[in-house]
Amino acid sequence: MESLTVPPRTGHKTLLYSELVTQLEGLQSDIAILGMPFGSAYSPRGFTNDQTNAPQAIRDVTDRIVRAPEHYDFDIDGPLLQGRTDIRFVDCGDVLPDLKIPGDHYRKAELAVRHILKGGGLPIVLGGDHGITNPVLRAFDEVGPITLVHVDAHLDWRNEVNGVRDGLSSPIRRASELPFVKHIVQIGLRAQGSGRPADYQAARDYGAVLISAYELHDIGIKAVLDRIPSRGNYYLTIDADGLDPTIMPAVDGPAPGGVNFVQARALIHGLVKKGRVVGMDIVEIQPAKDTAAKLTCVTAGRLIVNLIGSTIKAGYFDK
Amino acid sequence: MESLTVPPRTGHKTLLYSELVTQLEGLQSDIAILGMPFGSAYSPRGFTNDQTNAPQAIRDVTDRIVRAPEHYDFDIDGPLLQGRTDIRFVDCGDVLPDLKIPGDHYRKAELAVRHILKGGGLPIVLGGDHGITNPVLRAFDEVGPITLVHVDAHLDWRNEVNGVRDGLSSPIRRASELPFVKHIVQIGLRAQGSGRPADYQAARDYGAVLISAYELHDIGIKAVLDRIPSRGNYYLTIDADGLDPTIMPAVDGPAPGGVNFVQARALIHGLVKKGRVVGMDIVEIQPAKDTAAKLTCVTAGRLIVNLIGSTIKAGYFDK
Amino acid sequence: MESLTVPPRTGHKTLLYSELVTQLEGLQSDIAILGMPFGSAYSPRGFTNDQTNAPQAIRDVTDRIVRAPEHYDFDIDGPLLQGRTDIRFVDCGDVLPDLKIPGDHYRKAELAVRHILKGGGLPIVLGGDHGITNPVLRAFDEVGPITLVHVDAHLDWRNEVNGVRDGLSSPIRRASELPFVKHIVQIGLRAQGSGRPADYQAARDYGAVLISAYELHDIGIKAVLDRIPSRGNYYLTIDADGLDPTIMPAVDGPAPGGVNFVQARALIHGLVKKGRVVGMDIVEIQPAKDTAAKLTCVTAGRLIVNLIGSTIKAGYFDK
Amino acid sequence: MESLTVPPRTGHKTLLYSELVTQLEGLQSDIAILGMPFGSAYSPRGFTNDQTNAPQAIRDVTDRIVRAPEHYDFDIDGPLLQGRTDIRFVDCGDVLPDLKIPGDHYRKAELAVRHILKGGGLPIVLGGDHGITNPVLRAFDEVGPITLVHVDAHLDWRNEVNGVRDGLSSPIRRASELPFVKHIVQIGLRAQGSGRPADYQAARDYGAVLISAYELHDIGIKAVLDRIPSRGNYYLTIDADGLDPTIMPAVDGPAPGGVNFVQARALIHGLVKKGRVVGMDIVEIQPAKDTAAKLTCVTAGRLIVNLIGSTIKAGYFDK
Amino acid sequence: MESLTVPPRTGHKTLLYSELVTQLEGLQSDIAILGMPFGSAYSPRGFTNDQTNAPQAIRDVTDRIVRAPEHYDFDIDGPLLQGRTDIRFVDCGDVLPDLKIPGDHYRKAELAVRHILKGGGLPIVLGGDHGITNPVLRAFDEVGPITLVHVDAHLDWRNEVNGVRDGLSSPIRRASELPFVKHIVQIGLRAQGSGRPADYQAARDYGAVLISAYELHDIGIKAVLDRIPSRGNYYLTIDADGLDPTIMPAVDGPAPGGVNFVQARALIHGLVKKGRVVGMDIVEIQPAKDTAAKLTCVTAGRLIVNLIGSTIKAGYFDK
Amino acid sequence: MESLTVPPRTGHKTLLYSELVTQLEGLQSDIAILGMPFGSAYSPRGFTNDQTNAPQAIRDVTDRIVRAPEHYDFDIDGPLLQGRTDIRFVDCGDVLPDLKIPGDHYRKAELAVRHILKGGGLPIVLGGDHGITNPVLRAFDEVGPITLVHVDAHLDWRNEVNGVRDGLSSPIRRASELPFVKHIVQIGLRAQGSGRPADYQAARDYGAVLISAYELHDIGIKAVLDRIPSRGNYYLTIDADGLDPTIMPAVDGPAPGGVNFVQARALIHGLVKKGRVVGMDIVEIQPAKDTAAKLTCVTAGRLIVNLIGSTIKAGYFDK
Repeated sequence: MESLTVPPRTGHKTLLYSELVTQLEGLQSDIAILGMPFGSAYSPRGFTNDQTNAPQAIRDVTDRIVRAPEHYDFDIDGPLLQGRTDIRFVDCGDVLPDLKIPGDHYRKAELAVRHILKGGGLPIVLGGDHGITNPVLRAFDEVGPITLVHVDAHLDWRNEVNGVRDGLSSPIRRASELPFVKHIVQIGLRAQGSGRPADYQAARDYGAVLISAYELHDIGIKAVLDRIPSRGNYYLTIDADGLDPTIMPAVDGPAPGGVNFVQARALIHGLVKKGRVVGMDIVEIQPAKDTAAKLTCVTAGRLIVNLIGSTIKAGYFDK
Repeated sequence: MESLTVPPRTGHKTLLYSELVTQLEGLQSDIAILGMPFGSAYSPRGFTNDQTNAPQAIRDVTDRIVRAPEHYDFDIDGPLLQGRTDIRFVDCGDVLPDLKIPGDHYRKAELAVRHILKGGGLPIVLGGDHGITNPVLRAFDEVGPITLVHVDAHLDWRNEVNGVRDGLSSPIRRASELPFVKHIVQIGLRAQGSGRPADYQAARDYGAVLISAYELHDIGIKAVLDRIPSRGNYYLTIDADGLDPTIMPAVDGPAPGGVNFVQARALIHGLVKKGRVVGMDIVEIQPAKDTAAKLTCVTAGRLIVNLIGSTIKAGYFDK
Repeated sequence: MESLTVPPRTGHKTLLYSELVTQLEGLQSDIAILGMPFGSAYSPRGFTNDQTNAPQAIRDVTDRIVRAPEHYDFDIDGPLLQGRTDIRFVDCGDVLPDLKIPGDHYRKAELAVRHILKGGGLPIVLGGDHGITNPVLRAFDEVGPITLVHVDAHLDWRNEVNGVRDGLSSPIRRASELPFVKHIVQIGLRAQGSGRPADYQAARDYGAVLISAYELHDIGIKAVLDRIPSRGNYYLTIDADGLDPTIMPAVDGPAPGGVNFVQARALIHGLVKKGRVVGMDIVEIQPAKDTAAKLTCVTAGRLIVNLIGSTIKAGYFDK
Repeated sequence: MESLTVPPRTGHKTLLYSELVTQLEGLQSDIAILGMPFGSAYSPRGFTNDQTNAPQAIRDVTDRIVRAPEHYDFDIDGPLLQGRTDIRFVDCGDVLPDLKIPGDHYRKAELAVRHILKGGGLPIVLGGDHGITNPVLRAFDEVGPITLVHVDAHLDWRNEVNGVRDGLSSPIRRASELPFVKHIVQIGLRAQGSGRPADYQAARDYGAVLISAYELHDIGIKAVLDRIPSRGNYYLTIDADGLDPTIMPAVDGPAPGGVNFVQARALIHGLVKKGRVVGMDIVEIQPAKDTAAKLTCVTAGRLIVNLIGSTIKAGYFDK
Repeated sequence: MESLTVPPRTGHKTLLYSELVTQLEGLQSDIAILGMPFGSAYSPRGFTNDQTNAPQAIRDVTDRIVRAPEHYDFDIDGPLLQGRTDIRFVDCGDVLPDLKIPGDHYRKAELAVRHILKGGGLPIVLGGDHGITNPVLRAFDEVGPITLVHVDAHLDWRNEVNGVRDGLSSPIRRASELPFVKHIVQIGLRAQGSGRPADYQAARDYGAVLISAYELHDIGIKAVLDRIPSRGNYYLTIDADGLDPTIMPAVDGPAPGGVNFVQARALIHGLVKKGRVVGMDIVEIQPAKDTAAKLTCVTAGRLIVNLIGSTIKAGYFDK
Repeated sequence: MESLTVPPRTGHKTLLYSELVTQLEGLQSDIAILGMPFGSAYSPRGFTNDQTNAPQAIRDVTDRIVRAPEHYDFDIDGPLLQGRTDIRFVDCGDVLPDLKIPGDHYRKAELAVRHILKGGGLPIVLGGDHGITNPVLRAFDEVGPITLVHVDAHLDWRNEVNGVRDGLSSPIRRASELPFVKHIVQIGLRAQGSGRPADYQAARDYGAVLISAYELHDIGIKAVLDRIPSRGNYYLTIDADGLDPTIMPAVDGPAPGGVNFVQARALIHGLVKKGRVVGMDIVEIQPAKDTAAKLTCVTAGRLIVNLIGSTIKAGYFDK
């Protein structure tokens, strides 16, 4: 059998004390972390961008996110797995490129997510840049109609850059072309949150629901949740720059006025209750720009904890 | 007479231009700063944790907190001491451990606070880790019934860690055992804000009022103030991680979604008016993680300025 | 003709891809950036304070503020210049001191702004410390009655410091003495936001509208806008420490509780609609204290983008 | 015609004020700089190692290496080009990988060096890791018999690593297999200066002259020069860790006791006089580890200056 | 049985790929690493000085000191253990203080070294500050007469500091009082290399051979070796500031003009051949002051490699 | 009386525990430190170059240079002042510019040195950039014929830069024009150690003795001393970049191959014995580029200690 992932070589080998599994074929799990450090670069220098360090940087603050898995957590009113011993929580390690076969890691990533989904797992993917959402989302074709919920300062509807169509500027455009993606809701848009005006027009033409950060601050997160179609299968993709740079400062281009943590947490809890969250990714963290206390990586971890705790509480993994 | 404290050796020798006093027996004062750098460590490496640098780090930004003591301050509608020349504002220096007598600095700290209280002073203690609240609070046994107001992301109800019962995880548990502590209100709880579920249960069984950060953001600080018993003697202990890491980033484990400065300031002004604030400490700052402009230390200082200014305005020190 | 400015020597030579122009006499433009790195120092060490690096530091993040000038920007609902090819947007470079003629750069700065105004340009000045507002504002004597809108933690009404009357502590006092300045509104005051009580009294005696940050948070930015006289010629001077240090951390003395970005943006859009914004400066950024992602400089740039976009949308430059 | 190189995008575009040329076919020159940032990586993470930043980091200290090209330089007893206006000194920019065609940059680098040699140029290559010597050296097949002079702490005789045969551990082994490489002299060996004992044996079996750093310190650089065959065509490859880490600290694995600058300079001047230096590279600099004053990059530049000045003085480019 | 040491918690758990052993009673070994992070502090702040981080910092550069234990090393003409599979090379972990029993770690350290010596091991101790030589040396009372060879800028003959007699200023004075220490040779003295003149006089009165760094540079290391009594049992204590700060920069008080690496290496090889080196320590490294490439820690490791390799070559461990 | 200097405002107020004196008229002393932070800038940005921070940066490492003044120092075979209580060692503070009177600090510096000389003091001046030697040297006109000994990588014979004739590039040219300067010896020249070839020619025409660093390494410092005229009044000016950047790394443009500490120390001791050293300055240190252990500033201090100790030993201050 092909080996799709490798375990981290230093620091915390898994996120949040989960079980390390790199044999993905036939894997039965409930919640599955997958590291996807490498996107589809626009240039040689971008091949190993700082985002490639993010999966491990997030794992490395495991004990700052959650001191001990059995401790009580106020965000989710109980311990991480809610005291449930029947929940299988795994970390599948990282999908890495093969320098000899350009693009092969996208094939591997898609396959890895397919294995996770097949075995009942909820995949939580640690990017990497936003290019990684491309292969991940393709694996959801048998899950049913998907509502893509996108938190970002930017639209990400570029068709291609330097001839690359599955890079960090294009994930939502590519998602819009997938037949099983039925709705797209984009939250936190602001600043130069788009590519060319034509990209913006394409998003509107598609029917994407565009909610700027300013509208969110105006109407509140509950009203935003109301604008998302109910009872859907939600795939949530969070670009770190969608959140406010005061709370997620380690990004390439910070844009003031973003989504705050309380709003983002409420969005996660709201989606979990409103339908079924079938997957999530967090992308575009550049660890070298993080604060001394690693605020960005801790915040990313806290969003994941909120997803894990709320899905368990909502009965997602009851057998 | 025993020497309980020593003056700082570098930088600003006192906080906010106050008078340096290290002879505490018989000291008459109104407001008294006390540095308490060392807690009760769980391990050798923790003996000199970065929190031990905080008292001096806060003093060192004195001129960023208050440019000149006679200048007008908008937070307190007047100069620091409100133009009052009859107010005695002192800094008692730091209580240091004796490496030959383990734990002796807790005895000294308790005694130092007793001297301050006896001479009419309002003690404002600069930690150090949260262990330092243990000896400080014990000194209040003759002040009358105390309502402990606790701003923190964490419960701090651990019974012991590595056999240590007066360390940074246990101050509220220990406080709950003091006969003169009558009420405990804990504000800003969030993330893995607790130890074991049993610790959480102990807090609830005791009757502690637990207000999560999310509840605070929902109902507002005025409603929170209404949940605190009126006309009490309030001892306010502020763990820096109770505040949001965007404004107090220099902490060991930042937790997004915390109390913001406007809320914390309103809490101080509200308590001062609602009863009598009899003591305060600020703990768990790790200066090495502060921003280039020393935001955490400046914010700590601003909270102290708000306490000083508002207690003077409220007539606490009128003779 | 005298050369008033010099182009930057490294990095982005102009802000936001504008056209470089250093021949100011006879310059016809719509929007004109001017760098003014040097104020009027109180001491030799202060001559080249870190604020002198700010004009270039802001220019250097041009591609973080705006990725490409033709891209769609959500803050201003269109590209930077709104697709208008008839708008002339220039950067005039920096006014530098002549070490042989103390103070001559203030004369040059005033003259440079006069040239810009004469040619129809809206000057946007990059400080420098707050001393630079002194010569800039003097150039507006033929524009008509001016309402000065001032965002700052501090009053800046000192009469002189070390014999210097046009330094960073005095710009609003000096402005109050200009006959064409008719109203002064000061927003975001907090902490030790003033000099001596007499300075505070002078501001009140003059009739300055003083709105503390706490009042702003209480009543909201719309109510604040209502307190500014309508249909004015507004000159907006933004001290970086007026904004909250979480979003503009690179300042000398951060003061928690400040104006947030959403409020500052709304203030700009509100002023643009309420009357005519005739000039703006952003001062007191110390780039050495900025975050790794240069949040302060990016935020400064975003405020400028909001001014540019909203003035164009409001028809300021329609011919 | 195929484009083999690209010009740097920031900072000094060329080394030492040379002329930028990226059209290499038909290029006539005397001295030609070529940047070769990328080697042949052993792993994805190694693809963009810090050595890839070295060509530009060295160019960026151009004005620290040589303040002005016309100034007098004591190391070479005259200005950089010795006042010669007939010397054509060019910088060919950098050879970059094509992410779609693995290994293609080695083909391009070899071709680029062939063009330089064909047009009479002395190539000076800026690595990159030591893998880059592989393609560069292959281009010398028409130059005549080559004596390879290698300054390094390590032997670099590994046959392959992870299946890669032209990576940073193998350049001397690969060189030994080239028919036109007749002699190999390795200077500065020390510490764990080899791979497996079999690699060491292979070097000895080949007949490489191995001179440890300790032998050099013992016998002096003149005696070392005497051990190099006379009147050769010398290709000099300098691994930064061959020099002492006190003077070239920015390396992956510093080894104390290395070649000092005075010795290295004497080696260059000695080789230039002893025969003909036909090419040089400097590799394995990791700029992120350099000192605040960029000592490693400046020293690299000074070695190049010594080569340029001494070859001109020796009449290499007399026509 | 009492547990004397604990294994490191992060990074390389042992130095140079050695075997981890924390059960020291009855331990049979040839070469034994022992970490001794904590000395005997003069003040609370000094309890956890940066020297306490050195044992782990040195272990953490294991793969920069020696890439792989089986590779050929030029300093010792063969692999680390010279291909000998019968050599037992262990790392005993670190001796830690018990915060409840002041000074107990000195008792433990002495006992740990006794166990190592009893089982035939050559102890190599990683400090910590120079206080740690006190307990270590006491364990050698059954080894026979000892010649103490001391590399340091300082004399270390203070009798006491703040009442502490076994701190970092006193190890040689204390050694001089041990009956089995017969000779003391101190090399590298320079700068303010002493305490009071009386300390200097005491060293001379004792008969210590004092060789300043300047004398060493003048006469050479071979002449220095001649001044050390022959055929002794040598205990070598190396204070990092004895070496030149260019090669061991991470020290508290660097003194220019020190012993260079080539000299220090020759000293080790010379002592090994001249008699029997029975123990070694390296102390006073402050890792926070090291270079980006960790030059000081790597150099410390290289000195240890030279000791290990040369003792094996000299037949110390032949059975 | 005019106030010529001001005391430092933070850190060690004086160098090496000397007595602070800012009243210079009539000052009787033996050894006098004078800080001269500001040169004559070529541009506004250069006015407050990093060299202006050097006087205080050197003072601030006082306790790293000399732990206690009464301790024994191996470099000078006794305590700093050799136990002499009759030696008056003062620090005169810093000469600062007056922003209103360009160049006035040169007048003040010259006058300050005149006062020191008049009162029998040996002035040791802490720069600042090399411009400061201009006014200092002018004060020696009544001392008798001066031999200027100059340690530097550069010639410093520029006539003017940007119209400035007394800036950092010109001190030796200006010295050559002083009638009482009879000989000039320049040691350590290397790299681009000159300005234009005409500057080099001017130095040769004058008769300056030019000794490159390479010649020094070749012939040794004793032979260099022999080339300096005997029994002179020596003024020693040390540019930090004259020393090797491994030992004085905190310079603007490091040049490998420089004078090492042992050579520089021998030069000082040699000059002291060969004639009379009448003054010294150390210039061009940029503290922001120093190592974590402040090696450059400590080395500067050690050179000063060697001058002080050796002049006292030589009987300079015997009465």
